[in-house]
Amino acid sequence: MNKNKFAVTPPRGWNSFDYYDANVREQEIRANAEYMADNLKQYGWEYVVVDIQWYAYDTGTQREKYEYIPFSRVEMDEYGRLLPCPERFPSSVGGRGFAPLAEYVHSLGLKFGIHIMRGIPRTAAERHLQIKGTARTADEIADPGSVCLWNPDMYGLRDMEESQSYYDSLMELYASWGVDFVKCDDICNSRMLSGKSDAQQSEIRMLYHAIQKCGRPIVLSLSPGPALLERGSFYSEYANMWRLTGDFWDNWTQLRDMFERCEKWASYVKKGCYPDCDMLPLGWIGKGFLEERKTRFTQAEQKTMMTLWSICHSPLFLGAELTRLDKETLELITQQEVLALNSAMDNEVLQLMKNEDEAIWVSRNPGGQKLYVAMFNFKNQTANIILPKGLLADKDVQFETYHRVTDVWDDCEIPEVPDAYMAEAHGVRLLRFEQ
Amino acid sequence: MNKNKFAVTPPRGWNSFDYYDANVREQEIRANAEYMADNLKQYGWEYVVVDIQWYAYDTGTQREKYEYIPFSRVEMDEYGRLLPCPERFPSSVGGRGFAPLAEYVHSLGLKFGIHIMRGIPRTAAERHLQIKGTARTADEIADPGSVCLWNPDMYGLRDMEESQSYYDSLMELYASWGVDFVKCDDICNSRMLSGKSDAQQSEIRMLYHAIQKCGRPIVLSLSPGPALLERGSFYSEYANMWRLTGDFWDNWTQLRDMFERCEKWASYVKKGCYPDCDMLPLGWIGKGFLEERKTRFTQAEQKTMMTLWSICHSPLFLGAELTRLDKETLELITQQEVLALNSAMDNEVLQLMKNEDEAIWVSRNPGGQKLYVAMFNFKNQTANIILPKGLLADKDVQFETYHRVTDVWDDCEIPEVPDAYMAEAHGVRLLRFEQ
Amino acid sequence: MNKNKFAVTPPRGWNSFDYYDANVREQEIRANAEYMADNLKQYGWEYVVVDIQWYAYDTGTQREKYEYIPFSRVEMDEYGRLLPCPERFPSSVGGRGFAPLAEYVHSLGLKFGIHIMRGIPRTAAERHLQIKGTARTADEIADPGSVCLWNPDMYGLRDMEESQSYYDSLMELYASWGVDFVKCDDICNSRMLSGKSDAQQSEIRMLYHAIQKCGRPIVLSLSPGPALLERGSFYSEYANMWRLTGDFWDNWTQLRDMFERCEKWASYVKKGCYPDCDMLPLGWIGKGFLEERKTRFTQAEQKTMMTLWSICHSPLFLGAELTRLDKETLELITQQEVLALNSAMDNEVLQLMKNEDEAIWVSRNPGGQKLYVAMFNFKNQTANIILPKGLLADKDVQFETYHRVTDVWDDCEIPEVPDAYMAEAHGVRLLRFEQ
Amino acid sequence: MNKNKFAVTPPRGWNSFDYYDANVREQEIRANAEYMADNLKQYGWEYVVVDIQWYAYDTGTQREKYEYIPFSRVEMDEYGRLLPCPERFPSSVGGRGFAPLAEYVHSLGLKFGIHIMRGIPRTAAERHLQIKGTARTADEIADPGSVCLWNPDMYGLRDMEESQSYYDSLMELYASWGVDFVKCDDICNSRMLSGKSDAQQSEIRMLYHAIQKCGRPIVLSLSPGPALLERGSFYSEYANMWRLTGDFWDNWTQLRDMFERCEKWASYVKKGCYPDCDMLPLGWIGKGFLEERKTRFTQAEQKTMMTLWSICHSPLFLGAELTRLDKETLELITQQEVLALNSAMDNEVLQLMKNEDEAIWVSRNPGGQKLYVAMFNFKNQTANIILPKGLLADKDVQFETYHRVTDVWDDCEIPEVPDAYMAEAHGVRLLRFEQ
Repeated sequence: MNKNKFAVTPPRGWNSFDYYDANVREQEIRANAEYMADNLKQYGWEYVVVDIQWYAYDTGTQREKYEYIPFSRVEMDEYGRLLPCPERFPSSVGGRGFAPLAEYVHSLGLKFGIHIMRGIPRTAAERHLQIKGTARTADEIADPGSVCLWNPDMYGLRDMEESQSYYDSLMELYASWGVDFVKCDDICNSRMLSGKSDAQQSEIRMLYHAIQKCGRPIVLSLSPGPALLERGSFYSEYANMWRLTGDFWDNWTQLRDMFERCEKWASYVKKGCYPDCDMLPLGWIGKGFLEERKTRFTQAEQKTMMTLWSICHSPLFLGAELTRLDKETLELITQQEVLALNSAMDNEVLQLMKNEDEAIWVSRNPGGQKLYVAMFNFKNQTANIILPKGLLADKDVQFETYHRVTDVWDDCEIPEVPDAYMAEAHGVRLLRFEQ
Repeated sequence: MNKNKFAVTPPRGWNSFDYYDANVREQEIRANAEYMADNLKQYGWEYVVVDIQWYAYDTGTQREKYEYIPFSRVEMDEYGRLLPCPERFPSSVGGRGFAPLAEYVHSLGLKFGIHIMRGIPRTAAERHLQIKGTARTADEIADPGSVCLWNPDMYGLRDMEESQSYYDSLMELYASWGVDFVKCDDICNSRMLSGKSDAQQSEIRMLYHAIQKCGRPIVLSLSPGPALLERGSFYSEYANMWRLTGDFWDNWTQLRDMFERCEKWASYVKKGCYPDCDMLPLGWIGKGFLEERKTRFTQAEQKTMMTLWSICHSPLFLGAELTRLDKETLELITQQEVLALNSAMDNEVLQLMKNEDEAIWVSRNPGGQKLYVAMFNFKNQTANIILPKGLLADKDVQFETYHRVTDVWDDCEIPEVPDAYMAEAHGVRLLRFEQ
Repeated sequence: MNKNKFAVTPPRGWNSFDYYDANVREQEIRANAEYMADNLKQYGWEYVVVDIQWYAYDTGTQREKYEYIPFSRVEMDEYGRLLPCPERFPSSVGGRGFAPLAEYVHSLGLKFGIHIMRGIPRTAAERHLQIKGTARTADEIADPGSVCLWNPDMYGLRDMEESQSYYDSLMELYASWGVDFVKCDDICNSRMLSGKSDAQQSEIRMLYHAIQKCGRPIVLSLSPGPALLERGSFYSEYANMWRLTGDFWDNWTQLRDMFERCEKWASYVKKGCYPDCDMLPLGWIGKGFLEERKTRFTQAEQKTMMTLWSICHSPLFLGAELTRLDKETLELITQQEVLALNSAMDNEVLQLMKNEDEAIWVSRNPGGQKLYVAMFNFKNQTANIILPKGLLADKDVQFETYHRVTDVWDDCEIPEVPDAYMAEAHGVRLLRFEQ
Repeated sequence: MNKNKFAVTPPRGWNSFDYYDANVREQEIRANAEYMADNLKQYGWEYVVVDIQWYAYDTGTQREKYEYIPFSRVEMDEYGRLLPCPERFPSSVGGRGFAPLAEYVHSLGLKFGIHIMRGIPRTAAERHLQIKGTARTADEIADPGSVCLWNPDMYGLRDMEESQSYYDSLMELYASWGVDFVKCDDICNSRMLSGKSDAQQSEIRMLYHAIQKCGRPIVLSLSPGPALLERGSFYSEYANMWRLTGDFWDNWTQLRDMFERCEKWASYVKKGCYPDCDMLPLGWIGKGFLEERKTRFTQAEQKTMMTLWSICHSPLFLGAELTRLDKETLELITQQEVLALNSAMDNEVLQLMKNEDEAIWVSRNPGGQKLYVAMFNFKNQTANIILPKGLLADKDVQFETYHRVTDVWDDCEIPEVPDAYMAEAHGVRLLRFEQ
């Protein structure tokens, strides 16, 4: 299987983390999936992803002290494979795992994804559980020094044959459930035994091979960032998407910073390989973090985010609680031309310029008939951004051949082609020029 | 001008450094140019580049102590612009600079290039020389803390308007001489005031703009490496080629190491943007370094080098003294199909695998009719390398559709398609598969 | 209690590690203690220290794979305090811990010490054991991200009140056993959550306070090195000795390197505060490491080591199996004047010079009547070392007032005071000058 | 000569930098010296130091652009030795250098010091000036890559015999002028060719030897900091004082930070070896920096500074313009008991505790009859600081034997010994306890 075929355009869906943290329950997943099927599916939104610690009991009960309770009780089978906590995912009782939930999501015409931490549960190592299909036990493949900085559940695996067997057994199980997407954490940028941060290369390779063996085209997403540029070729070889930053939230500093990341990673974008700007913290978010709120992004910033993610071909995953989506947010995430730009993998895309005050990205279709120009205003106030015809000419854009200009977000034609365009504070003008 | 049009395939030529160090003289340049015109031009070799310190007197006279004599006498005009040392470049007398030499090179149907150090001569700063077209003097634009670690001639320039004027005046002069190629040093990876190493971004930008203004499509080559991956987009924006390593010489360790670099930089290769594996230390080299020798590379290593440079679209610059070229080296650098691979910018190129023992790169033409597979053997002994059909299938290469296989270096068809291919120690098998 | 009074001269004794690794048994401890009482006690050797993993079952049974078996069975009480493994320490049965063994050691006129790892057993955290005297459990004070790089047994403790209670309960137990010396590991230079290496300051402070509370003057030794110079004042405040290097073994490279360390740490030596050059790998060592051997140090190197450790006031701990001690080694470690130098805390000590070939240290008694000069030869061959009278004069040593010179190791007077002294390869001349 | 005898107590004097920057003139030096002779000499203040760039013309004329004008005109002899600029130091005309000024300072019963930059003037290298007493020229000993980050005047020297000759010729000249104190800059913590920061060890050694040869006991002060702890032994060997920080100015953040430095460096303080907290920015300062002002330190902070510098045995150099000294400042710097504490090199000194809110240092005379306790309040408001009797007991201070307590700054006895003492925001209580 060519993993680049698993996702020929940037994956698009919803993820439970931004609203629920580690505490989402089955009914909430179903409700969000239903909303997606009814309102978003037609725009290409299709993945429903259950994020971190679906296997843990008591999540969220000590939220003031811990995001992840250390040494907590987890649901696990005899081979050290985590199962959904039946208190939170009732359909999983009787060892059925996520199969019933995945089946329901599929019945809605959608795809089903889950989050995992790399490695094997610490408690499996303490209990010396058997690795399926091998004569070894968990304490032998677990590396006692390979622990995650921020989550206490797992040990990373040694680079040995039975570790591959463990991952094989995992993906075999998930494939049997019908999982379409795996977001693996503490693996893209992770602390090594040496104290250095790096990609956990041997575990990424094992996951890749386990997916190849399982026979199901499971999209592999690597977390957390910042991904390491020197591992760009490596990620491209083994995964479908990798995170450019740590957790992305609703503040301008992080959004502004994403421009540097997109610039650096632009050369790595291709079909099946997506540098990932992380979830979109839109609508209602933060409940599981005890900070329930409407996104702090202004309307202008939301458009800036949608435009940047789209023009750079980032995956798009909604963080909002879908059942509470307001009209403005719904319009924002269903703007067809913006979403089409996100999927237009054959376009030529480049950042034309960036300075302290503004950035300009362009995306041109293969024939050159349509030229998109996104002009971003970094200032804290409205500003005029000049169309840099000289820079376009340097890139062989014969600007004089374009005679019509349309504002994409406003969906209106601009009578004559001006030299400068006004953009709100932290906002964007996304223009389509046509020959 | 679109700088990517200045060199739509990787530049190919000769450079004086590997044989002459800083000591080349006009007659030697002419002799090498003549050899190129007579024997190599038809294969696409066209640039003749005078490397470092053509402006200095006494180069090479204290070779045991210094590569570059500190505080040495240099030839310079009233605006602090370096001129060829007339003792070594007689045609430059009377302020004619490199114009006569460039004219001669052009008359042979070739192109002419020079090396420069970023910045302004230290002695120009001490003498407070005027910056052409401005009211400022050299001491005002020279940054006294911006010195090169390894060459004592220059001060880097402050980021100010008159520094741009200085670079403008330089490129105006070089364009008037007929220079087609500038290799600028201490700029791609250079020590900053902070002690950190980085690209000298403001000076690269100034050079770019100076070239744009001068009206001549001068190819801009940045040195030395290792180029910084996080500046990949930046180099792509402003230059045509940038060095992946420090000076590359004729030893297996450096050659073996180049595979890591090529892998990392593969995403940045495109028309007009060439990650540069550095000069080819073939034939007779080392004279100026008091180590005159025939290259220490074995025949097998030479083919490995030519194959890697070519399949990765690196620029190709010969380090050999051309007038002493032997038959084997001549054949090596005029293998038409290998050179065609180097220029085939529309091919899809990727490293299929790499481990401690071997690497495999493939290059496929747009229609897919021709598939090149380069199998590199890193071992110190002959080895069989297995054609990894599974990996090719992962990349959607329908291997069963290819029925003919040819050994490119041996130029002979292989009767039936074997599963494994024998390669010499440090050697390569370059195969062409055809549908 | 003033911890500097716990050890007013550098501690001197024997440690089980160099010969037994983690596998020492009670009978072996007793045998070594008996040898010490009979042969070494009169020279000031007094501590008998049981090194790492005395609480673990199965130590040494998988020596080819692990030095420390991960997730192995350990002996532990209901409060998560480790106890001696009764299979290896029979007198500890019935919860008596090390009390019987300590009592026996004391009966010989010696002192008893143990090794501990900082933190609480991982299995105590998994099992949520209670912390003595508190309402909290081990999972609450264990920091799941604070693991040792090289030993899998423990979790470090969070900086909280109940962590202090845990250490208090430990020292209370050890004091009740009669422990005189605690060597705590993974604490002097240890990896932090941040990936940085540093002293585990909060746990060192807690140990200090626990010792103060326990009422017994337990000497606190911190391991491993290299200790961090910027923590020099901190170590001095809370501990009695701290290691200057990682594990020190019998090779010249490490011995040679110790000179740099001693130089750097000389300013921190004072009564109760001893930069620690680590155990002396003399005699028979290495058995537990499956490398049983007589020390690889030459006689000359052994004297160099003894001289350096002594003149710099390092603690002296023998690594040799005492019951197999040969005559030469016994003489080496019972040279009375060298040992007296080690204890002479009122002497003025300084490194007079050091270069690639030699180093000279001097130690002068308060009245100045006796001047010791240690001349170390770093060369691989015999060399003459010149007595640097000028440097002595720079330090106000009126050299002309010294009229007698004695070779300390040879114990013979040298007829007239020569200007230069011959020293063997890697050897030393230790001279006593008298007024 | 034993350099530790050159200054058996911390040097104490005045330095031109804080008030005049690089622009001081002879008359101003004389005026300050006269003030010192009349008012401060009796309290041990004795050095008068001319700080940076006394050799340069035009200093201060472009203050908005540069602190140090690059490539400026300097006064220099035929051997590349800098001389006082005669426009600013009229008595130096006719090649007399600083001899007349030093003679005047000496006539007042004071000592004379100068600042130098390490290395040789850049212009001497460009002009190939001869090195006195050798056949070599400045371009041969100057290292073109060894430049100061912040001052453009000099090149560092290569580690070669003629570099020693240059420094010898310098110290010979300065000794002939009567210089008593040399503050050498860009040498204590300086950028190396490698980009790393370190002490310029070879140049420090050369300066030391040059001073030894010159026959005059010139105190050697190294600048700038932060000095490197791992070079502590090295500085102690070759210099008399070394700076703990970069330039110290009149703000609380820097003053607060000095406590960490003093703690770290306490082990290195001894007669002739003084970790240096830098000049005291008291009174009127800042004129040369175009920020003329009275110190921004509050009275409380000024006492904190004087107490910390004194109890830690830091050198004391006044930054104030002495001729404008007010009564309060004069009292502050002439408090006899505080100054005596500064000179009491036989006292036992230690930091008793330090946390976020407070620090306590103690200094006890050899017999123990007098115990000084300095209690520093880091808070932004008045606070009560408890006398930590337990910690004192840990240090074997029998506190019950002290019956009288005096407030040193207030010079009044406190009737009964309280348990806590009130200190102002950022202030100190300095107490003397007597048996």
